[in-house]
Amino acid sequence: MNSAIEPSIQALTQKLHTGDLNPLTVAEEVIHRLERHRENPIFIATSSPETLRERAHELAKLNAADRMSLPLFGIPFAVKDNIDVAGIPTTAGCPEYAYVPEKTAFVVQRLLAAGGMLVGKCNLDQFATGLTGMRSVYGSPINPYSPDHVSGGSSSGSAVAVACGIVQFSLGTDTAGSGRIPAGFNNIVGFRPSSGVLSATGVVPCARSLDTISIFGNCSDDVRRVLAVAAAYDGADPFSVRVQDGGAQIAAPVYGVLEPRDDLFFGDKQARAAYERGLNRLRALGAQTKVIDFKPFKAISDMTYFGPSMSERTAVLGDFIASHPDATYTAVVRDAIVNAAKFSAVDAFSMLHEVKRLERQIERETWSQVDVLCVPTSPTIHTRDFVRENPALGSTSLGDYTNFAPFLGLPAISIPNGFRPDGLPTGMMFVGRGHDDSKLLQVGEMYQA
Amino acid sequence: MNSAIEPSIQALTQKLHTGDLNPLTVAEEVIHRLERHRENPIFIATSSPETLRERAHELAKLNAADRMSLPLFGIPFAVKDNIDVAGIPTTAGCPEYAYVPEKTAFVVQRLLAAGGMLVGKCNLDQFATGLTGMRSVYGSPINPYSPDHVSGGSSSGSAVAVACGIVQFSLGTDTAGSGRIPAGFNNIVGFRPSSGVLSATGVVPCARSLDTISIFGNCSDDVRRVLAVAAAYDGADPFSVRVQDGGAQIAAPVYGVLEPRDDLFFGDKQARAAYERGLNRLRALGAQTKVIDFKPFKAISDMTYFGPSMSERTAVLGDFIASHPDATYTAVVRDAIVNAAKFSAVDAFSMLHEVKRLERQIERETWSQVDVLCVPTSPTIHTRDFVRENPALGSTSLGDYTNFAPFLGLPAISIPNGFRPDGLPTGMMFVGRGHDDSKLLQVGEMYQA
Repeated sequence: MNSAIEPSIQALTQKLHTGDLNPLTVAEEVIHRLERHRENPIFIATSSPETLRERAHELAKLNAADRMSLPLFGIPFAVKDNIDVAGIPTTAGCPEYAYVPEKTAFVVQRLLAAGGMLVGKCNLDQFATGLTGMRSVYGSPINPYSPDHVSGGSSSGSAVAVACGIVQFSLGTDTAGSGRIPAGFNNIVGFRPSSGVLSATGVVPCARSLDTISIFGNCSDDVRRVLAVAAAYDGADPFSVRVQDGGAQIAAPVYGVLEPRDDLFFGDKQARAAYERGLNRLRALGAQTKVIDFKPFKAISDMTYFGPSMSERTAVLGDFIASHPDATYTAVVRDAIVNAAKFSAVDAFSMLHEVKRLERQIERETWSQVDVLCVPTSPTIHTRDFVRENPALGSTSLGDYTNFAPFLGLPAISIPNGFRPDGLPTGMMFVGRGHDDSKLLQVGEMYQA
Repeated sequence: MNSAIEPSIQALTQKLHTGDLNPLTVAEEVIHRLERHRENPIFIATSSPETLRERAHELAKLNAADRMSLPLFGIPFAVKDNIDVAGIPTTAGCPEYAYVPEKTAFVVQRLLAAGGMLVGKCNLDQFATGLTGMRSVYGSPINPYSPDHVSGGSSSGSAVAVACGIVQFSLGTDTAGSGRIPAGFNNIVGFRPSSGVLSATGVVPCARSLDTISIFGNCSDDVRRVLAVAAAYDGADPFSVRVQDGGAQIAAPVYGVLEPRDDLFFGDKQARAAYERGLNRLRALGAQTKVIDFKPFKAISDMTYFGPSMSERTAVLGDFIASHPDATYTAVVRDAIVNAAKFSAVDAFSMLHEVKRLERQIERETWSQVDVLCVPTSPTIHTRDFVRENPALGSTSLGDYTNFAPFLGLPAISIPNGFRPDGLPTGMMFVGRGHDDSKLLQVGEMYQA
């Protein structure tokens, strides 16, 4: 587990750039690992051994200067199967929805141009809707830390592919918490950039105003390297923004933390203990912490599943579902999207106004006194049995700490936070102000180091 | 007409600051003019002669240094009656909706603190909904240039109060074009700042994401002086933004203009001729012009009245109307707000996505090659008879050139553009990029000079 070929992109590119390691060796190792994890439904499609060897050959032919110019030279990666790669079907987790794109997604193009080696397209909760990893009709990726527990979703395969060491990094998407929940459950890093930093051109829309591509890796530095390649303004994506990053350095951030109370954790004492241990670690590192009022954040998080926000997914997917009643659906996903048609425009505008009101309250109460939030990635982790019996609650009960960030456009990163007594991994999540992506990655590095 | 006490705030304050003119003299003149225009339903409430004299006395007592420190010392102004003044009922054009606010609106507080003299609260199209000025149950303000033609709305009284010289400037609001249409019809300047520049605290909401206070005056320099006093970040208004003005200077702006074609002007050849004459004037001033494609702007403007956008007003006013079925309504306003309840959240999100798409198209096609748009303020002007017979169309047919700016948060200014052969005034409207307010005021000064 976490058996990446090297512990970091930095270590791997160093060897690849110098020629100490040949991309062909990497390709063979990837092929071997794909085979080893064949029974785990991590991927919906994988590059064939021939394709991987061909790509490795192509890269191996480059001279030293060209190799050095490629920041992701020979690095194996995977993308969630709601992100287009030319010639490979994009399913979004629904076979009948699938189409074969002519163009590769904007961000993936940049990763490939930087020397990345595409390994496959990852399994996901259908239409990127859900946080469990048990909502795919392509099987449910197995959590390498516990086959009885969920992998987390919706970017389930993307997270497990990194956790199992098949790829060095992967792309997910994050509309509520899909880019972070499975990071926490699989002991890896999951990063949601500020809204608009990563182009959504060639990504299946979910809720357009909330969507972003996300990045999974083994450490913050890996994420930083991938982000540096991937981020660019894209005039074709109406939600793309010109990056105005607040800068990489922050001297001594003040952390806004929760007052650990049972009711915030749904009685999961192990998650609570892990969070408290994490806070102690943070303080031992010299960090100043301040207890914040999480209620306005929670109020926004709750909007994800229990109001007109879900109608934004209906706006994109409703017509498809209506015209394909017999397609292969995950019932709980289909029903959530179809049922959200009942909300009115008045409901939608009222919600948007309420989000603005809460955003301002948070600005006044929280951002006026802290630089970074530090919360658990999720309030608990569920067994597969629990989610099977509670398909809706199994997902909605996981998003308290993730779901608000997309509404506010905030960057957030989930960092491995050690293990519970029962052996399950936990995540610590840091959330920054809008466009404090660099600062947040720095905080992540500090915490993980 | 345009018989302001002095032609500009600059001229008036110069005399008032030096003591050449006493605020009491101004107050008496205002009282006289209020009396002269008594038959014109410009105001819903006016300050009593006693109140005006008291305020003037209070100001007159200040020493020279204190007078000089007040940029609006002794300047008479009025505010639309959807803006709160403590102790005076706010009606929003509906008697049963009226309430007596305890606090004065954020922006009005600033105007008063700068020495302004509040003259009254102006008549308006009910709930600030409409562009005709004929949708008030408090009578319809008379256009000083033609009693047979509409005054424009919804800030009808605010515009006419300036046009009749009763006040030196006034506040309106602008959710679609209410701060600009009546400026064009009354030969004055009407300015809509970039969204969020002027606080909406103490303003009756209309469509919150589109609303702003607007400013009427005789010239751009007056608007600039009022804006400088009024603009400040307000943490209590969720839509307030910290001003990031692009700066005051722009060397040689390129103007995006329309290819004058009959179909864009609904066959009103006089409006078209005025626009063409204005373009010639602009070019004679040395300006470079480029014909732009107005279709995406028009597509956004059309969203104001014909889709779920109106539901944003229902979100704010729907409950009041439902619980007060027998209140005094303008039927066309009430029906528009009530009928918009039929739209779904899916409609609303689809519209928001379409606005984003069009915004990006405009950025690519228009803002890439021009600095400022130059369009007519309205495609025509209607007779009162026409609007009486066509209460809905009478309004919707006026907003083609105004309505898109609120969706995009853009600043826009309507400048007097001379008279048509039939003696009616016309307006030329300049629209800037977001937060180019200063540049736009500079363009307005240049054009009007």
